[in-house]
Amino acid sequence: MADDLVLTGAMLIGAERVTGTGKPIHGVDPRSGETLEPAYGMAELKDVERAAVLAAEAFDSYRHTTPAERAAFLDTVANNIDAIAETLVPRVIAETGIAEPRVRGELARTTNQLRLFASVVREGSWVGARVDPALPDRTPLPRPDIRQRKVPVGPVAVFGASNFPLAFSVAGGDTASALAAGAPVVVKAHNAHPGTSELVGTAIRCAVAEHGLHQGVFSLIFGDGATIGTALVSDPRIQAVGFTGSRSGGLAIAAAAAARPVPIPVYAEMSSVNPVFVLPAAAAARGAELGKAYVGSLTTGVGQLCTNPGLVFVVDGPGADEFVASAAQAIADSDAGPMLNAGIQSAYVNGVQRLADSPEVTEAASGRANDDIAAVGRTRLFATSGAAFKANPDLREEIFGPASLVIRVDNVEEFEAIIDTMEGQLTATVHAEPDDHATAANLLRTLEPKVGRILFNGWPTGVEVGHAMVHGGPFPATSDSRTTSVGTLAIERFLRPVAYQNVPVELLPAEIDEANSLGIPRRVDGQRP
Amino acid sequence: MADDLVLTGAMLIGAERVTGTGKPIHGVDPRSGETLEPAYGMAELKDVERAAVLAAEAFDSYRHTTPAERAAFLDTVANNIDAIAETLVPRVIAETGIAEPRVRGELARTTNQLRLFASVVREGSWVGARVDPALPDRTPLPRPDIRQRKVPVGPVAVFGASNFPLAFSVAGGDTASALAAGAPVVVKAHNAHPGTSELVGTAIRCAVAEHGLHQGVFSLIFGDGATIGTALVSDPRIQAVGFTGSRSGGLAIAAAAAARPVPIPVYAEMSSVNPVFVLPAAAAARGAELGKAYVGSLTTGVGQLCTNPGLVFVVDGPGADEFVASAAQAIADSDAGPMLNAGIQSAYVNGVQRLADSPEVTEAASGRANDDIAAVGRTRLFATSGAAFKANPDLREEIFGPASLVIRVDNVEEFEAIIDTMEGQLTATVHAEPDDHATAANLLRTLEPKVGRILFNGWPTGVEVGHAMVHGGPFPATSDSRTTSVGTLAIERFLRPVAYQNVPVELLPAEIDEANSLGIPRRVDGQRP
Repeated sequence: MADDLVLTGAMLIGAERVTGTGKPIHGVDPRSGETLEPAYGMAELKDVERAAVLAAEAFDSYRHTTPAERAAFLDTVANNIDAIAETLVPRVIAETGIAEPRVRGELARTTNQLRLFASVVREGSWVGARVDPALPDRTPLPRPDIRQRKVPVGPVAVFGASNFPLAFSVAGGDTASALAAGAPVVVKAHNAHPGTSELVGTAIRCAVAEHGLHQGVFSLIFGDGATIGTALVSDPRIQAVGFTGSRSGGLAIAAAAAARPVPIPVYAEMSSVNPVFVLPAAAAARGAELGKAYVGSLTTGVGQLCTNPGLVFVVDGPGADEFVASAAQAIADSDAGPMLNAGIQSAYVNGVQRLADSPEVTEAASGRANDDIAAVGRTRLFATSGAAFKANPDLREEIFGPASLVIRVDNVEEFEAIIDTMEGQLTATVHAEPDDHATAANLLRTLEPKVGRILFNGWPTGVEVGHAMVHGGPFPATSDSRTTSVGTLAIERFLRPVAYQNVPVELLPAEIDEANSLGIPRRVDGQRP
Repeated sequence: MADDLVLTGAMLIGAERVTGTGKPIHGVDPRSGETLEPAYGMAELKDVERAAVLAAEAFDSYRHTTPAERAAFLDTVANNIDAIAETLVPRVIAETGIAEPRVRGELARTTNQLRLFASVVREGSWVGARVDPALPDRTPLPRPDIRQRKVPVGPVAVFGASNFPLAFSVAGGDTASALAAGAPVVVKAHNAHPGTSELVGTAIRCAVAEHGLHQGVFSLIFGDGATIGTALVSDPRIQAVGFTGSRSGGLAIAAAAAARPVPIPVYAEMSSVNPVFVLPAAAAARGAELGKAYVGSLTTGVGQLCTNPGLVFVVDGPGADEFVASAAQAIADSDAGPMLNAGIQSAYVNGVQRLADSPEVTEAASGRANDDIAAVGRTRLFATSGAAFKANPDLREEIFGPASLVIRVDNVEEFEAIIDTMEGQLTATVHAEPDDHATAANLLRTLEPKVGRILFNGWPTGVEVGHAMVHGGPFPATSDSRTTSVGTLAIERFLRPVAYQNVPVELLPAEIDEANSLGIPRRVDGQRP
């Protein structure tokens, strides 16, 4: 890949480097405001179509690769990305302002995630293999031999996210799970990190070539959401969409997908305020400690994480005082950091202003300023009462960035009515001591229908990539609560079941053949594998 | 239930019998055209809201029933329906004209299906339990304890189908799988079998009472699709929809669901022509036998099955001649039967006329007429060429009833282009002898992306209710190809995953507790259960 480490400003449409003829964009260093080279020309509609056509052409051969072949390919993608770390990491930092340790952590997460999906593909549970053997002597009618397996839905469109330029972008979770499922991928890069996207895209493209796969297995295009993004979602060859970003962006994509002559599933991870409930005994026992840890979570990634704790509910009393005082002190001590780009920074400033102007909301603390940073994000803490929170729906809206609102309620009985007013969330967090457990049990029961993940005595930022993780939740946290965008269950988003009735033995797919030649878990006659 | 065997014309809104104040409808015997008593008053919007409110109120307690409790409830529903068989069967026959053996078969299928879901609930794989134990010593960061299980999405709306008044209606597959998942159900009865719906609804209502469940676990309403159906789908408390019926009906429901402030999943099974491919060696070896079996499948249920073989492709030659001659003879020998209702009959007559008027389409045979049947369905067989089929998209549309089109192609190479023109299908069928297997392998590969079930050497009607069945497929066969409406996998339609991070042992749900007290399959640290 040595030759591929020079950025060209081109899209990767199958094996071809294509320089977009649409109005070019540049990466911008949000710390300095400096424009980064090279220019990236935006796609025209014909480029979208070409990428989709190639993906459709690649589908038949790619979905017929063996699990071992697909796993090896995913491992190579991971290795290729690791191999360019020393070129990639500085470019990520330059395009996003994310601090180096986080970028290196995210890189490890990204390549580990690819390898995890390789292991999932090899293990084979994802196939959902089921065999109901024939019962020729059954009365009144014999039962035929019926077998089921899951197959990929078809080419998948992936939209890169601004805040995880590696883990939720070109080779992020959506791409990894779609490729694992046997689905070709067309990525629309996020315009805020085009160079990062080109580098990672090249790593995938090289892996496609190394494994002799059809060039259409992967393409990378640049373009705006309204035209190029919509065209991609609307292309008849695309069969599913993965997206992580704003609520407005996700809703636009979902609307475009639903308006197609043949609607397709959209997995959009959009908006969450991630409520935190500090119960009385927990506040009393460790109010100060919790306040400090809260700010640690709030300021991670300059607050630009989907699981950022945007609302913290605490019951009035001495523990609550300690919690707020400690949080306010930690906020005051917090340095400003660079936000991902000027657009996000401007939305953050507006959101903070709206919150500051809200009736019965007071500013509890603000972090240090820093005039040396162009797209600066200054930490902000606000406070209000439970009554005011219930009365003002605006306070339930996400502010993307390092701002949070502490809501002091009179008693734990208020929680139920407050939760009733809330939309779906990625996470909800409970801080509880054993004395709080009766309250916590009720709270868990009330929260469960609203969220994808419930945490105790922790903070929601930091999403483990594992088998049990759910990064999802009811609308508008996501557009489809039946799944997750992080963790191994994510592969199921791009699969559908097919049944095979009395198919001759020699024509059966390996996954459901007589010998179980792949050695995968299979449910035979309803018995667990 | 003895007192409940008298039809009252009322809806069942929770525990209450409510006579709708909207314009009443009656069941009609399609054989005689006779109007059946009693009248069924249609719901007003307030009735829809009341049923949805009750379902939402029931959700918390119902979803917290143990698997054993839910399974016992499903068994009681089945027993209650079996107990009223001698009242129910005659009413089904009167309202639908379906012959008694089929009604009794469908009744057995319906109650067996409920018992199958009871066994699924007990077995517990549906929980999708996953446990990733904590790794406190992991570097750079410890791993928290994370557990995952699936929970029901919330109250489900079910629309009864006209053609399976038991198995796809009030206590049909959608209701059984939703109740199994822990979701309360509001059924909108099909207007063509209101008495059947009331009887079955009463059997469910009694089971709800016998098991001391919240009355809102089940409600049954009557009403038209445009107003009452749309209101039900649009009610904010409803979280998913199951539907089996026409394409226009399914699309209207999907549009209403997508237009909600909070969109919800719709599982609509809509439209399929179920192509059959008779390969040359099969036609040569058993053309006459296949022709006869084809008509047997086509005329089952007077052709009103979703999996009815609407298109049969056969390669020209002596075997094809025998196939068509045999089919034509069987058609000519076939008796007319009653269609489900006058509306379906009228649509059938129009569809047949459209086909008969199509250029290059010839009528190959028609079955016996029968002027004694009011809503009569006369069997019809048409023929055309591969070239004409490809040229005329109208020929790809479903005609609901006992009409089918044989397409004679020049050679097997034509199949690929023909399949390319087709929409998604519930089924595709291949008739093949070993000499056909090379062709069949290609065909299988071409068909797979288009269908939910592939059959060899059989006929698509007759859908096994088992673990491996898929009754689904790409749009427009269904609105959501990721699942099935028949078979045990159907429970997954009404579930979503939730993760629990570091939840204290005593607060964990039983499904993911420390001891695995339910004894269900659990994936621990990614290892298969």
